[in-house]
Amino acid sequence: MRMDVLTLFPEMFEGVFTSSILGKAQEKGIVSLSAVNFRQYAGNKHGTVDDTPYGGGGGMVLKPDPIFRAVEDLLGRTEQGTVPRIILMCPQGETFTQRKAEELAREEHLIFICGHYEGYDERIREHLVTDELSIGDYVLTGGEVPAMVIIDSITRLLPGVLGNELSAVTDSFSTGLLEYPHYTRPVEFRGWKVPDILLSGHHANIEDWRRREALRRTWLRRPDLLERMELSPKERQWLEELQIDEEH
Amino acid sequence: MRMDVLTLFPEMFEGVFTSSILGKAQEKGIVSLSAVNFRQYAGNKHGTVDDTPYGGGGGMVLKPDPIFRAVEDLLGRTEQGTVPRIILMCPQGETFTQRKAEELAREEHLIFICGHYEGYDERIREHLVTDELSIGDYVLTGGEVPAMVIIDSITRLLPGVLGNELSAVTDSFSTGLLEYPHYTRPVEFRGWKVPDILLSGHHANIEDWRRREALRRTWLRRPDLLERMELSPKERQWLEELQIDEEH
Repeated sequence: MRMDVLTLFPEMFEGVFTSSILGKAQEKGIVSLSAVNFRQYAGNKHGTVDDTPYGGGGGMVLKPDPIFRAVEDLLGRTEQGTVPRIILMCPQGETFTQRKAEELAREEHLIFICGHYEGYDERIREHLVTDELSIGDYVLTGGEVPAMVIIDSITRLLPGVLGNELSAVTDSFSTGLLEYPHYTRPVEFRGWKVPDILLSGHHANIEDWRRREALRRTWLRRPDLLERMELSPKERQWLEELQIDEEH
Repeated sequence: MRMDVLTLFPEMFEGVFTSSILGKAQEKGIVSLSAVNFRQYAGNKHGTVDDTPYGGGGGMVLKPDPIFRAVEDLLGRTEQGTVPRIILMCPQGETFTQRKAEELAREEHLIFICGHYEGYDERIREHLVTDELSIGDYVLTGGEVPAMVIIDSITRLLPGVLGNELSAVTDSFSTGLLEYPHYTRPVEFRGWKVPDILLSGHHANIEDWRRREALRRTWLRRPDLLERMELSPKERQWLEELQIDEEH
């Protein structure tokens, strides 16, 4: 899989693209990542990529021409037969979710366009991009860090990227519940002990405790996640008990 | 303001902390950013910071001791009288929002703890941290990129960080509506023209058009945002017109 990022700040990506899972996924040849400065497509000697908005008002707007030409240059170097998704990082976009990560992980080539504290000329939105994505309801200075978020979430889903020991981890949002509490050594740390049940060696009881704690944490912190889930009869009973405990 | 990140991958932060707005905010002395490798607090010659979970199962769990000691070392070097917020980056945390960014921007010192495809020993959660934050409902390989998201959103809110020309930009989520469409030169690009209204020079009409377009985009893409807003009588009328247009 190939993912290209168009940005005015390619240096922001160096540490992220070369470290940890993303670095290893590239070394294994599973994914190819690049950050391209679209200023080189400005088409003028000053490298100007933005201009003032028609109709007045503050702020600057990214011109259509450099971004169209940068994308077209990437498309010209794309393997025959693959049609890349062209993703605009913007606060007006669809909110990114795990389901969207799974959808995008099935593509062969993604191109991310990152603006930086500026608006995009509307013609980029209307005539060039296939997707507009936002990672959440907060204001950031640019699309660079959000693009890293999406690239990271997609890469870890690609076959061969996570080892067995990692993929075995029960992720929040994959199971639908938040994770249960984890404990490791020492068994007592500054007077705080690991729950006895985890030291009991009784696997069925441990599984029950974990499922119940995951349910409890989800119910306390993210009840919205429970609404979308199908619970077993035992889980429904636990949930009722939690609600009774809370009332008393 | 000071923000420290505890991570096993400090090199991921180099490009992000030195570029663009974050780089400039540090040069101006408004914010001080650092990434500290908590492996140096492992307290054993192998630098081991994780171990297998009590109760069995896959995955590894970050031990409490190195993280407690890393935080305590930072606290020992903190100015008298400031009490840092200690923020755990984790999928089980409260979902980060613009309101939370505004709250955290009023603090003097924040410490971020980033795990990396591993769980945290529950005692870190219970006895060390003051906040647990998630940036959205998707699975990532670590807390590093989410910490960048939060640090970026906080830094841009600090006085003196954004110039007037930037702070004047009408941000999505700050006004409650998604942004209206922007256009800049050329007036015609590949046959696609800028809307006539924006070339009219009639400021009141342009303002009306922009407000209506912002309302339209929000209604189409994020109707949930409208539910929390107080609309003027004119805006309510526009909204009714949009709904009628849609039905026909």
